[in-house]
Parts: sequence; C-alpha cells; structure tokens
Amino acid sequence: MNDKVNVRPTPVLAIHGGAGTLLRGAMSADKEQRYRQALEAILLHGQAQLAAGDSALDVVVEAVRRLEECELFNAGKGAVYTAAARHELDACVMDGHDLQAGAVAGVSRTRNPVLLARLVMQHSPHLMFMGAAADELARAHGLEMVASDWFGTPERLAQLQMAQQTASGQLLDHDGQTQAGQDSGPIDEGTKFGTVGAVALDARGHLAAATSTGGMTNKQPGRVGDSPIVGAGCYANDATVAISCTGTGEAFIRACAAHDVSALIEYAGLDLHEACRRVVIEKLPRLGGRGGLIAVSAKGEVCLPFNTEGMYRGQVKVGDAAPAVGIYGEAFI
Amino acid sequence: MNDKVNVRPTPVLAIHGGAGTLLRGAMSADKEQRYRQALEAILLHGQAQLAAGDSALDVVVEAVRRLEECELFNAGKGAVYTAAARHELDACVMDGHDLQAGAVAGVSRTRNPVLLARLVMQHSPHLMFMGAAADELARAHGLEMVASDWFGTPERLAQLQMAQQTASGQLLDHDGQTQAGQDSGPIDEGTKFGTVGAVALDARGHLAAATSTGGMTNKQPGRVGDSPIVGAGCYANDATVAISCTGTGEAFIRACAAHDVSALIEYAGLDLHEACRRVVIEKLPRLGGRGGLIAVSAKGEVCLPFNTEGMYRGQVKVGDAAPAVGIYGEAFI
Repeated sequence: MNDKVNVRPTPVLAIHGGAGTLLRGAMSADKEQRYRQALEAILLHGQAQLAAGDSALDVVVEAVRRLEECELFNAGKGAVYTAAARHELDACVMDGHDLQAGAVAGVSRTRNPVLLARLVMQHSPHLMFMGAAADELARAHGLEMVASDWFGTPERLAQLQMAQQTASGQLLDHDGQTQAGQDSGPIDEGTKFGTVGAVALDARGHLAAATSTGGMTNKQPGRVGDSPIVGAGCYANDATVAISCTGTGEAFIRACAAHDVSALIEYAGLDLHEACRRVVIEKLPRLGGRGGLIAVSAKGEVCLPFNTEGMYRGQVKVGDAAPAVGIYGEAFI
Repeated sequence: MNDKVNVRPTPVLAIHGGAGTLLRGAMSADKEQRYRQALEAILLHGQAQLAAGDSALDVVVEAVRRLEECELFNAGKGAVYTAAARHELDACVMDGHDLQAGAVAGVSRTRNPVLLARLVMQHSPHLMFMGAAADELARAHGLEMVASDWFGTPERLAQLQMAQQTASGQLLDHDGQTQAGQDSGPIDEGTKFGTVGAVALDARGHLAAATSTGGMTNKQPGRVGDSPIVGAGCYANDATVAISCTGTGEAFIRACAAHDVSALIEYAGLDLHEACRRVVIEKLPRLGGRGGLIAVSAKGEVCLPFNTEGMYRGQVKVGDAAPAVGIYGEAFI
C-alpha cells in the first residue's frame, strides 16, 4: 500500500490447460507440439495486449476465451461429456482491483462461458448464475449461442464411452492407465483435470484471474466443481495474488484453495512460492486433492505448482523474447 | 494441536434466522414472540442433542431442518419467491472434523435442502449439485419430495407482488420501507436477508456448520448466492471456527467471508471476536455487504456479529438454564 509507488512490476500473464498423469502409452511428438504451440500462441497474444496497456481483466478473459476455442483443452469447444452425453460448462472471472467477480455453472448453449461470467460480473447485480437461466442471460445480452452438441468432438465422445465401460465409471479413478490406441496428448486424458485458466498483472498493477472448464468426463449431470467458485478455483486480489486452479474440484472447494493462498500471503506473511507450496503440496493431497494452480502475485512473481506428473502451463512477461511453456518436469517452474 | 487435551470446551449451538432492517411500521408483540419462541425451541432441542453426545454435524443439520420447517424463516417452507414466482433453494453443510462438505443450489422439489446437502456430502463423490439434477438425487435416495408450490405461503406471495410493483424491482433495494398493513415480524421482510443457519461445537471437540436459504424475493431465476458456497456462506474447520452467514450474498462471496474469518484466526492470530469484527464490520461494508454471521470457535467461544439493525439469532451451551435469543441490539452479543 504505502511502499514505493513508482516501482511497478513488469506485466505478466500465466495460463494453464489442465493437470494430470503423463500418458504411459505411445504419444506422438506431433501432438505434444500442438499443445505447446497452442499455449505459446495464446501467451504471445496476451503479451502483446499487456504491452499495449490492456487491463489484466481483458487479458485473462481473452486468454481463456482462446483456450475455450481450442479443441485440445477441456473448456468450451472440446469440453468433455457428462454421464448423460451432454455438456455442462462452468466459468469464473475475478478482478483484483475491486474484488468484483462473475461466475456461471452448468451452461450448455453459450459458446464462451468465460464471456458470460464477465457479463454477469459487469451487467448483473448478481454474481453467479446456473443452468438454463445463465444461458438465457447470455442470449438476452447478445453473446454467441451454439447448439448443445457444438462443444463435442469425436475424441471426447470416445473418452466418455471408455469411461462408461470401466468399472469405476469415472476416468479420474484410474491413474496412469493407457488409453490404448488413442493419441490424446502428453497428459493422459483419462487422468487429466481439464480446466483452463489465466492470471495476469497489468501495467497499472491490477491483478485478474479467469477459469473455465467442461468438468470431468462422465460426471453426473448437475455436478458443480471448483472452477466457478470464487475462492476455490478462481480468486484475484490486488493486495495479494491472482489464482486459477485445476484438479479434483471437490478437494479444492474444501480447501478454499485459491483464497487460502491469498490468506497465507496476507495474514501469515508467506511469500508466493511458500504459500503455493503449502496449499498444493501439503494441504490438498491430505484432502485427496490432485492438480495444480497458476499464481501471479501483486509483485509480479509467478508460481505454477502442481502435485501431478504434469500440467499444461506457460508464462510470459512483457519484454520476454518468447513465452516459457511446460508440460512435464518439476512441480515448481 | 499439542495443548492440554483434557480441557474440552462446553458444547454449544448457535443459530440464525436472517438479518436486516428493523420494521418501521406497526409490529405486533405477538409476532415478535413467535420468532423468539421458534428460535428458543430449536435451541433447546439442539442443547438436548449436544448433552446426549450427538455430533455437531447432527445438531446443525437438525437445527437447520427445523428452521426450514418453520414458515417464519426464508428457507424450506416459507421460502421467498423468485421473479418467476417459483422457489429455488440453496443449502450447504460442512464438517470441521474432516473438512467434508456438501452443497446444493437451485433445488425446487426437495422438502429439506439441508438434508440433501448432507446426503451429497456423505453419499456422492461430488460436493455440489445444482438444479433438477440435485432434486433427482434427493428422490433417488428417498428424501421427502414435495410439489414445487409447497414452499410458498400467502405472505411470501404478497412480498413478491410488492417487490414487483416497486421501481427497483428488488425488495432489498429500499431499506427501512414499511410494508403497510403487513405484520411480517420484527425485521422488515423487505430488507431482510433471509437465510438460516446453525453452528455447533460438540463434546468431542468437533465443529460443524449448516446454511439454508430461499434466496431473495424477486431474484432472477438461476441466481446462486453465498449460502451454498463453501468458504462464503458456510465453513467449518476444527482447527479454527464454524461459520454460517446471512446477508447480501454477492458481497459475502467476493469477501470469501466465512473462510476469511477462519484464516484471520489461523494465520493472523486474531481472536474470534476480532476476526469477526474485521470481516463483518470492516470488510463487508466496503464491498456493499450487509448482514451478519454466527460463529463458534474451536475453544467454544460464540460471536454473532451483524452490520444491520437486527438479526434473528440465539445460542445455548450445554448446562445453560435457558437459551439466549436476540433480534435487535448491539451487533455483538
């Protein structure tokens, strides 16, 4: 608050495309390259926005919109199927400047749930809408609507059929199992927590976060995970940090994971990395929570921790020659 | 953790039935007495349960179920109407012992949403369900179902009609306005945040919290408030505190109000009263948040703060000769 006001940290954007177990089967270098290129392209666009002075809110919403548009990731186009072979999408945005937030759960006709979450934040007295009423709000405000089967892809349908053939009934219950014959990318689609998200710090020192997901393959209809829950899967506060999570949503809700990182910084005086480590490496596993998060602090520090084998992730600062993108490796980059 | 294990605090239960502006019009002593008697009866039952060794979870769920059954309060029977003249009920429970939680949003056929929230917690791999799918889960597990118009009362319908006749369209927008000719109780129904909740500490030192609501009169269909959001309107953690909130839900979500009280105790080292004061008296008003909360700490302390003129509230410890019940008065009792 009262420290040197003229030392603004460099604007920065971080994104994720889900965390999970690395695929044990044959995996093509080509598919891996597609993931890396998709992440890089989105980071480069966000970098240009930040360099041009766009707000953190604009940048994270646009990054997540592009992640939704990319079939590789489980959000928007390419979303996974519920047990009823339908799509139910959740999204949330939060602006660290004024702690405004918007969220939607269980939408199925709105092309870009993250745009609807932002619309709710900016054009409704309410913060969160669910189901058909949320879609209706999108339609009434002129957002692009799509047929309910628009989100699906042949790959996602195959994943549902595989999930429904397993004994457990849910793909996330069988870690590391190969999806024979499927070239579904570096991280096993069967054990991936397919949320996408973005966090950014802009030139004015404001933080923002956005999260969007198609949920879990073969999830029961009506299930709401952490992605649309402020303080669980998404949180931003200019005083501390912006966070977007991906993982077993139930544990992230029980842990109030995103707000907990913020509280550990603000009240316990931890630095960003230690706060993230406590939540992702210590606390979440005790609750059965697997996954990770991306975090940008008010000081411009970045932390992308995960307790799984991999997480699609990347970051870029204004002025960087190229984005840094990762899939495997150490939990902390 | 490592302090004197044999000094167990006395078991205690606190409940609330909503906060708001005191009614400016004629208000009958009889109606006020009905509120007090309803709160006292529920507290006495919970006291007996706690004395018999029942778990905090059992006690808060039963207290909220009884609040749902009482037409005076906006939850279950007596729930307010949405703008579409229907009912959409939200509820949440959390067990501080293992941080398990369950929540439902937008149910309309399940007689007791708090029982469904507990069912989700105990019988589903998921934590939160919404809409018709949540009702379907209740039906599948044998909970009592009711017709969708069962929750309404003539008084609630009159409140909707009055709300829809106002310019603002939402009753909570016109503080202190008298509802002419209506004897609706000590707190103005037009400015009341009608959530109910309970928090308890049991003989084994476990905390639990439960919250249930019919939402806001004339709310847009699909709106989700703070009541079913873990960390916002409901939170329990044996290490710190159990919390149930009532108020302008959007601000409580943005503030992560319930989890923030817990974090201020755990990380900032504040005592229960100071943590509650920071959130209810300092932080929430800055976000436009009006309402209050009930809190029981791991040490057995009770705090029932609100920043409105009144809150239906009460508390009782095992061994107390009678429950303490309040409607008006200082924010802190």
